[in-house]
Amino acid sequence: MQISHIEHLGIAVKSLADAIPYYENILGVKCYATEEVVDQKVKTAFFMVGQTKIELLEPTCPESTIASFIEKRGEGIHHVAFCVDNAANALKEVEEKGVRLIDKTPRPGAEGLMIGFLHPKSTGGVLTEFCENPNK
Amino acid sequence: MQISHIEHLGIAVKSLADAIPYYENILGVKCYATEEVVDQKVKTAFFMVGQTKIELLEPTCPESTIASFIEKRGEGIHHVAFCVDNAANALKEVEEKGVRLIDKTPRPGAEGLMIGFLHPKSTGGVLTEFCENPNK
Repeated sequence: MQISHIEHLGIAVKSLADAIPYYENILGVKCYATEEVVDQKVKTAFFMVGQTKIELLEPTCPESTIASFIEKRGEGIHHVAFCVDNAANALKEVEEKGVRLIDKTPRPGAEGLMIGFLHPKSTGGVLTEFCENPNK
Repeated sequence: MQISHIEHLGIAVKSLADAIPYYENILGVKCYATEEVVDQKVKTAFFMVGQTKIELLEPTCPESTIASFIEKRGEGIHHVAFCVDNAANALKEVEEKGVRLIDKTPRPGAEGLMIGFLHPKSTGGVLTEFCENPNK
């Protein structure tokens, strides 16, 4: 497995409408897209910061894992996503090394990426995602 | 203010000795340096992932803010640091826009950088740092 860069940083917010102005007007980074990821019960907003996206995540219903996160810990950084060349192989490789997985195989994520999550119990408390861009 | 990239991601760990092997052997990223930052009561370990460093932070005493973080929330992502061209100006600019600061002016951080923190109450729960490399 080769990690090329941090693909994105996922940040849990209660409201995209309230959070986007902070990133645009205070930090000066521009929201270039928003997207609803029905499968993950979130609406997302994206900003490029160098190689890495900031991905704001607003829950679309109380059953969203992002809603539970905010209820338990408040708004804040939710996960880090590493860009890998092959997500299926990367998940398999870390599982063979004893890492507990949330996703045994990749599934579709935002922006057409194939993604899979590692369990934070195996990663020092850091909810970790592997992302592969199949259109590259 | 111009943010060029995410300079680093700070991750709170109980023990560098326990955490480094996960990054090196599972994720395949190499620890290139360790450093004690006495002022912040932490020992750090650095890994490059594309443009961005992963900075592991181990508290050196129970009074360290990293020790309190781990006690309250467990190990995990602690802060995000953005690279800016001028940290003093960037802190002043966001303060003028109503952001509460932890550091009114930059102070020395790890690796010779000048750094300053924004208060998470003003940043949607994301502990945020500005970093300037004065040797560039």
